[in-house]
Amino acid sequence: MSQDQTVGELGEFALIYAIAQRLATATADRVPVGIGDDSAVVSAHGGNVVACLDMLTQGVHFRLDWSEAKDIGRKAAAQNLADIFAMGATPTALLVGLALPSSTLVSWVMGLADGLSEEAGLVGVSVVGGDIVRGDSIAISVTALGELGERTAILRSGAKAGDVVALAGRLGFAQAGLLMLSRGFRSPRVLVGAHRVPEPPYELVQLATHASSMIDISDGLVSDLGHIAKASDVSINIDTKSFEVPEPLAAAASAFNGDAIEWILTGGEDHAFAATFSNALDVPTGWTIIGTVSSGAPGVLVDGEPYSGTGWDHFSSN
Amino acid sequence: MSQDQTVGELGEFALIYAIAQRLATATADRVPVGIGDDSAVVSAHGGNVVACLDMLTQGVHFRLDWSEAKDIGRKAAAQNLADIFAMGATPTALLVGLALPSSTLVSWVMGLADGLSEEAGLVGVSVVGGDIVRGDSIAISVTALGELGERTAILRSGAKAGDVVALAGRLGFAQAGLLMLSRGFRSPRVLVGAHRVPEPPYELVQLATHASSMIDISDGLVSDLGHIAKASDVSINIDTKSFEVPEPLAAAASAFNGDAIEWILTGGEDHAFAATFSNALDVPTGWTIIGTVSSGAPGVLVDGEPYSGTGWDHFSSN
Repeated sequence: MSQDQTVGELGEFALIYAIAQRLATATADRVPVGIGDDSAVVSAHGGNVVACLDMLTQGVHFRLDWSEAKDIGRKAAAQNLADIFAMGATPTALLVGLALPSSTLVSWVMGLADGLSEEAGLVGVSVVGGDIVRGDSIAISVTALGELGERTAILRSGAKAGDVVALAGRLGFAQAGLLMLSRGFRSPRVLVGAHRVPEPPYELVQLATHASSMIDISDGLVSDLGHIAKASDVSINIDTKSFEVPEPLAAAASAFNGDAIEWILTGGEDHAFAATFSNALDVPTGWTIIGTVSSGAPGVLVDGEPYSGTGWDHFSSN
Repeated sequence: MSQDQTVGELGEFALIYAIAQRLATATADRVPVGIGDDSAVVSAHGGNVVACLDMLTQGVHFRLDWSEAKDIGRKAAAQNLADIFAMGATPTALLVGLALPSSTLVSWVMGLADGLSEEAGLVGVSVVGGDIVRGDSIAISVTALGELGERTAILRSGAKAGDVVALAGRLGFAQAGLLMLSRGFRSPRVLVGAHRVPEPPYELVQLATHASSMIDISDGLVSDLGHIAKASDVSINIDTKSFEVPEPLAAAASAFNGDAIEWILTGGEDHAFAATFSNALDVPTGWTIIGTVSSGAPGVLVDGEPYSGTGWDHFSSN
C-alpha cells in the first residue's frame, strides 16, 4: 500500500484491512470481539450500555485546509467520549463510519485513524468497528459506548433548586480559534488548536459522578445549560463575575474587537462539562462554581437577566 | 412545522424535536434513557453489548429518484439489525446520524424517520439517539445495539470441516432490482422493492443461535462466505444445484440476458444469512443447505471450482 494512493485505487477491503491494522490494540478484556465480524462485542458492566453518536461533515465541522486529518480524528473521538463522560459513565469503545470520495488519499484516512486512536487511547479505549463507504464529501460518524458499572446515569433532569452550577474545562477557545482561522490567521496557537482539537477535561469529569445533573458543552454554555434547565424544570443563573477571562481570549477579543464573555457564554465545541451539585462543598477540586439553580420559569439567566446570544445551530449558518 | 419547509428553514433544534416526537415509543424497560440526554442508556443483559455501524450515502446506496425516504430509512435500519442478528444476538436499539443539505425537505426527513421506526418496530426496538448535521449531500449512519443474555456470540471464525453451510433469505433480488432501475424500469415490483427495502429473515435467523458460524450477506454470497472461510481457516464449497432460481429472478435474467445464478452468488444488499452447522440435522426449518465445509486452502469454491465473480466494492464502481 502506497500512501499517495487514493482510496478508490486501493479498494474497500484493502482500505479496511489497512485501517484495522492501524487500530489494532490489545483490549481483549474489554472487547471480546473487535473489528472483523458482523458486529463488535464490548463489555457493559452493570447490565446497561451508554451510547451516543455524533457526525462531522467536511465544510461544516472541519475544513481540510484548516485541520490535519489526525486533528479531525481526535476531535471526532473527543466529542463523543465527552458525551459518555457527561452521563457519569466510563467509555468502553468507539465505532466509526466514514463516507469518503474515491479521490481521498489513503494517507489522509490513515491520519484520521491515528487521530481517532490517539484520542481514544487517552481514556483507554479503541475503535472496535465501523464502516467505510463512498460519498460525495467526507462525513465522519462516531458512536461511543460506555458502561456505568454499579453507578446510576447522571441526567440533564436532575438539577434541583438550591444546587450550585459548576464548570470543568475551557470555554470560548474553539469559537475564538475558528474566528481566527476564518479571518485568515493561523494563530494564536492555543485558540486555533482548540478549534482543531478540543480538550475535554477527562480527569476532572470523572470526579463528578455524584453530580445531580451534567452536560457536555458542545453548543455553548447558555444553550446547553438551557437543556438542563428545561429537563429539570428549574431556573439557572450564570454569574459572569465567576469567570476569569483567560489571557489568550482576552487578547484575541481585544485584537478582533470581540467580546470574550460572549465567546465563553455561547462558544461551542470546547467540550467542557457543566454540572450541578447539591451544595458548594460537593464541587470537586478543579471545577469552578459559575452559578446557581432556583425554582422559577425554566431557562437560563446571565447575571439575573435574559441573554440574547445564542449557541450553534448547524443549519442556520448556511 | 410545515412539511414543505426545508431543514434549514426549520432549524436544528426544532428538527430534532420533531423527529424525537415522531420516534417516541414506549420502551422504558429496555431503554432507561432515550432521546434527549448526552447519551442513551440501553439494556445489555449478559454484561456485554453487541454493536455495529453502517453508513449509507446518497448516490451510492440510494438515489432520491429511485427510493422514497421511508424505504431508505427501512433499508438503513434493516442492514444494521441484520448485523446484530448475525452475531446470534437480539437487537435492543438504534442510533442514527444524519448529514443533510439545508435544502432537504422536512417531510423527507420525517419519512426517513418513519421508515427507521417501522423497520426497527418489526423486531421490537426503536431509535434512542443520534445526531443531525448539515452536509453537502445526504449521509445516513446507523448504529445498532444488541444483547446476548446468556448466549455466546456466533463468530465468523467458528466453522469446522464437516459442517454444512445453510442459507436463510433471498439472494440476488436486490441486485436484479438495481439493474432494472438502472435500465430505466420500475418493475418487476418484487425485485425493485428488494433493492429499495431488503427483507432480512428476522424470524429464521433467531432459530440459528446454535450455528457454528454466521454472517449477514451484504456484499454477496461468495464474498461473504469468503470471510467465514478465511476467519475459520476452512474451504467452503457452494453447490449451485441446491439453489432453486426463484421465478422473478429467472424471468429477469431471461429478459435482460443476465445470469440468475451469478446474481445469487454475487448480489449484495439482500441481507440473507449464511451459517454453518455441525450437521444437517441441526439446520433449522426454513433454512436451505447450500454447501459443505472442509479442510483445505481457505476460500470459497463454487461446484468445486474457483469462482471468478466478485462482490460489491464500494469504491471500485466509481
